Amino acid sequence: MATLFRVDSSIRTEGSTTRAVADSVVQGWSAQHPDGTVNRRDLGLSPLPAEAWAIAAGAGYVPADQRTVEQVDAIALASTLADELVAADSYVITSPLYNFGVSQHLKNWVDLLITDPRMAPGKPSAIAGRSAVLVVARGGGYGPGTPRAGWDHATAWVQRTLGEVWGLSVETVETELTLAAVNPAMADLVGLAEESLTAAHAAASTQGRTLAERLVAATG
Amino acid sequence: MATLFRVDSSIRTEGSTTRAVADSVVQGWSAQHPDGTVNRRDLGLSPLPAEAWAIAAGAGYVPADQRTVEQVDAIALASTLADELVAADSYVITSPLYNFGVSQHLKNWVDLLITDPRMAPGKPSAIAGRSAVLVVARGGGYGPGTPRAGWDHATAWVQRTLGEVWGLSVETVETELTLAAVNPAMADLVGLAEESLTAAHAAASTQGRTLAERLVAATG
Repeated sequence: MATLFRVDSSIRTEGSTTRAVADSVVQGWSAQHPDGTVNRRDLGLSPLPAEAWAIAAGAGYVPADQRTVEQVDAIALASTLADELVAADSYVITSPLYNFGVSQHLKNWVDLLITDPRMAPGKPSAIAGRSAVLVVARGGGYGPGTPRAGWDHATAWVQRTLGEVWGLSVETVETELTLAAVNPAMADLVGLAEESLTAAHAAASTQGRTLAERLVAATG
Repeated sequence: MATLFRVDSSIRTEGSTTRAVADSVVQGWSAQHPDGTVNRRDLGLSPLPAEAWAIAAGAGYVPADQRTVEQVDAIALASTLADELVAADSYVITSPLYNFGVSQHLKNWVDLLITDPRMAPGKPSAIAGRSAVLVVARGGGYGPGTPRAGWDHATAWVQRTLGEVWGLSVETVETELTLAAVNPAMADLVGLAEESLTAAHAAASTQGRTLAERLVAATG
């Protein structure tokens, strides 16, 4: 059965643009796979523990029968995260820009996953060749010529990880100016923000359908 | 009294290049300030809790007398981190490249700090104008023309945060190929790795002295 795996990273539920746009990806996908399964991992609301990655990384050098309980647990967590990816055939992954960088919770997820041999760099990952939609949201404007051009230090890393480290085929849906509605200093930008969001929802829906169609083409 | 604040991010103690190079910065600084104080925050060995940032960020919208215990604690943690920065006059901050991105623990530290009004973007921070040495280490080679050119997605963000968001004057000391000594596939690069490390220690010592001298010039 068709399975879409969704990863949320926003620390908010109310007013989260990445959650709303990811909903549109899921709707587009579900229209093609009404009986498909959508699984989720919510890194924003349920962050992975801060200690797990270092423990899992260190445990890789310890023979399996000599590991501490903490090491066994950390490896099991990384393995669960990899199982979730392997069990799906398509992905929607969200990446809100926080303080001009990547979500710390998304980075923790990637770090932990990379401790699992199936997701380690340097060879094709267990999910190589599958397709993903990456949903990005930025509070301000970062386009060419704006004061914050070049200040998005997150998106290129997420694309690199998904596309080049793990070998996914990635389509990115981006929204900007998401803070215009709540930041009085950005009042002049509300119209542009609404245009950006409308375009993102349309692109998300299209990419969700495309994700579903690619799967049908690959397996059918 | 002269006070240097040191931030470690490596998840290792044995074999950590950033810790070793930061030691050289501290030695260079201490040679000029033998009676100076060196304070530390070890994000690698004692990661900040994964939940604190989202709680602190949300608590900013809640009147002080209506905050939960968790919110009060998260704000207090962010405040402690800001106090540590404000109490020092110079900084050495380490940034090991992990999985082609920033240390999740360093990102958590920055995210938490930015919830404190003294360190928020958009106005001069409480430490603007002071000086920092940034110590960077990368396991492989990322220079122009190498297969991994452009794969360091961390350093530019750390420099942006320290230099442009917080207004520090930043000097960066970089080391590469740190995995050559332990990765058989990189055996040919051991000589280059040693050169890179030797140069980094020399630069670190010089930058530590310069950091100390700038302070004397500014306050004396």
